[in-house]
Amino acid sequence: MGEFDLIARIRARCPSRHDVLLGIGDDAAMLQVPPGQALCVSMDTLIAGVHFPLQTAAPDVGWKALAVNLSDLAAMGAKPLWATLALSMPEPDETWLDGFLDGFLALAESEGVALVGGDTTRGPMSITVTIHGVVLPDQALRRGAARVGDVIAVSGTLGDAAAGLRGLQQDNPEYRWTELRRRLDRPTPRLALGGYLAGRAHAGIDVSDGLFADLGHLLSASRVGACLQLDALPTSDALRQAAPDSVQRHALQCQGGDDYELLFTLTDAAWLSLQAEAQRQGWQVTAIGRIEATTGLRLTLAGHHVDPPARTGWDHFGAAT
Amino acid sequence: MGEFDLIARIRARCPSRHDVLLGIGDDAAMLQVPPGQALCVSMDTLIAGVHFPLQTAAPDVGWKALAVNLSDLAAMGAKPLWATLALSMPEPDETWLDGFLDGFLALAESEGVALVGGDTTRGPMSITVTIHGVVLPDQALRRGAARVGDVIAVSGTLGDAAAGLRGLQQDNPEYRWTELRRRLDRPTPRLALGGYLAGRAHAGIDVSDGLFADLGHLLSASRVGACLQLDALPTSDALRQAAPDSVQRHALQCQGGDDYELLFTLTDAAWLSLQAEAQRQGWQVTAIGRIEATTGLRLTLAGHHVDPPARTGWDHFGAAT
Repeated sequence: MGEFDLIARIRARCPSRHDVLLGIGDDAAMLQVPPGQALCVSMDTLIAGVHFPLQTAAPDVGWKALAVNLSDLAAMGAKPLWATLALSMPEPDETWLDGFLDGFLALAESEGVALVGGDTTRGPMSITVTIHGVVLPDQALRRGAARVGDVIAVSGTLGDAAAGLRGLQQDNPEYRWTELRRRLDRPTPRLALGGYLAGRAHAGIDVSDGLFADLGHLLSASRVGACLQLDALPTSDALRQAAPDSVQRHALQCQGGDDYELLFTLTDAAWLSLQAEAQRQGWQVTAIGRIEATTGLRLTLAGHHVDPPARTGWDHFGAAT
Repeated sequence: MGEFDLIARIRARCPSRHDVLLGIGDDAAMLQVPPGQALCVSMDTLIAGVHFPLQTAAPDVGWKALAVNLSDLAAMGAKPLWATLALSMPEPDETWLDGFLDGFLALAESEGVALVGGDTTRGPMSITVTIHGVVLPDQALRRGAARVGDVIAVSGTLGDAAAGLRGLQQDNPEYRWTELRRRLDRPTPRLALGGYLAGRAHAGIDVSDGLFADLGHLLSASRVGACLQLDALPTSDALRQAAPDSVQRHALQCQGGDDYELLFTLTDAAWLSLQAEAQRQGWQVTAIGRIEATTGLRLTLAGHHVDPPARTGWDHFGAAT
């Protein structure tokens, strides 16, 4: 099985979209961007053993490779349209490829995304996806748009994926595998929420490196500070059982990575409207703090100020950031 | 030095373009596609030891990573605008990164391409670039658009990079390193020629896997055949000296890879006009054969038919194709 067989295998399974003028199989894909919309492009690499545990099942790798990219578009308030995939594997393994595509294409189909091109190469297992979407340029959620007085809110629950990873590393039976592992392996990009927030919220980012690290990016881009209430962080029952000690649990929620939840800031009025919409849509959204003029991050717990820990996030080169 | 330091180092050196609404540093880049144009997207991975020799200098790796992607857009007749870069390296090595950027950004600047985003990760050395450009949709050079009777033409000279690689592998002092190695390490994407051919030629592809393999893709997509004159293949003086035996030389020119020349088909009238334009522009273009209705590839040498060799191209998984 050679490169062209792999490409043919991928191509045979890929549904198209009306705006794909030319998909897999030419020198480049040719795509029709809707008039008036800005093109949003994001690119993320997953390396086996770094971005997912080596024992991760192929469909979960496929799902996650697309999900982490979709999460970036959700954080811009953009609608995803097209993906390209660069896949390196040590040997052309059709069983693994089929499994990978099962996960990748299931998520692609559910979000209406077409796989339109890419590259396959022999090399250490590594997956890079480039995702393309559109947004009205003045409605995009930029990191640098937070304003003093904004509510800071977050989608879903935090810390589950980090607990799932820790449980896996420690081979700890106390962890509820099915739920926490699922959050690690199958993150849910919050696209519908991101689409709603476009033009309604101020700043947005997705929580991929950990809450503190990603909030830090948002704060420094916006040149503002924040106060967070640690006891307001949205917490799943599974996490509460896996990490009953609150100090340990807060560490997972603030410094763990791989949540792929949206972190965003908005006015009190917009927050009220969002809560009503979230009720209708079944979205979980939680206010966890407020943007302040004084730079830096302040934390409260049960109404008292507490010190932030020194290490604030996950860096793919392993340095504290 | 961590991931965010690397990104800051890249960002500091990247000039922007007027149509980049948001570049490096947010969840996604935001880009303005000119109205009426189709977006062209291509993605290529370079793995150390597979796509470039391990001893390749960092600036040459940077140049080549962008050049092979630009070559895909040239083969569509598209104008490149924006690139994203996913870079994996074993350790965050700022000296190597600076050298890589020297080569990458020199080519980007000369073609007016802005680097707008990407990802940096720790892993085995691997570079994936996604290139974005635009073309008028009805003028794009598709692989499947060749017509019976078309002239088959190619840009530049063929076989130089393959000879450079062979010389390197054999440590053969007979090879003229400076020229052949330069063709291997610093391919020239034929963007001006590709832009001219858009709307004027019928089919186009770039020669990356070898003349036979890439012509094969074009022929099967167009459901036609071809006759090639082996003695018409454009040949550099350096290659003639490095491979004086014509059988050996033709093998390098037909089955070697990494040429990154344009292979295209057009009417006799369009070929005449192109020759006049090529004279004015200093482009080297050579007619090497003709599209025929009978499928398959036929070869002539000094007016006589000769048999094609069995192995027809370079496959990144090493299988004969």
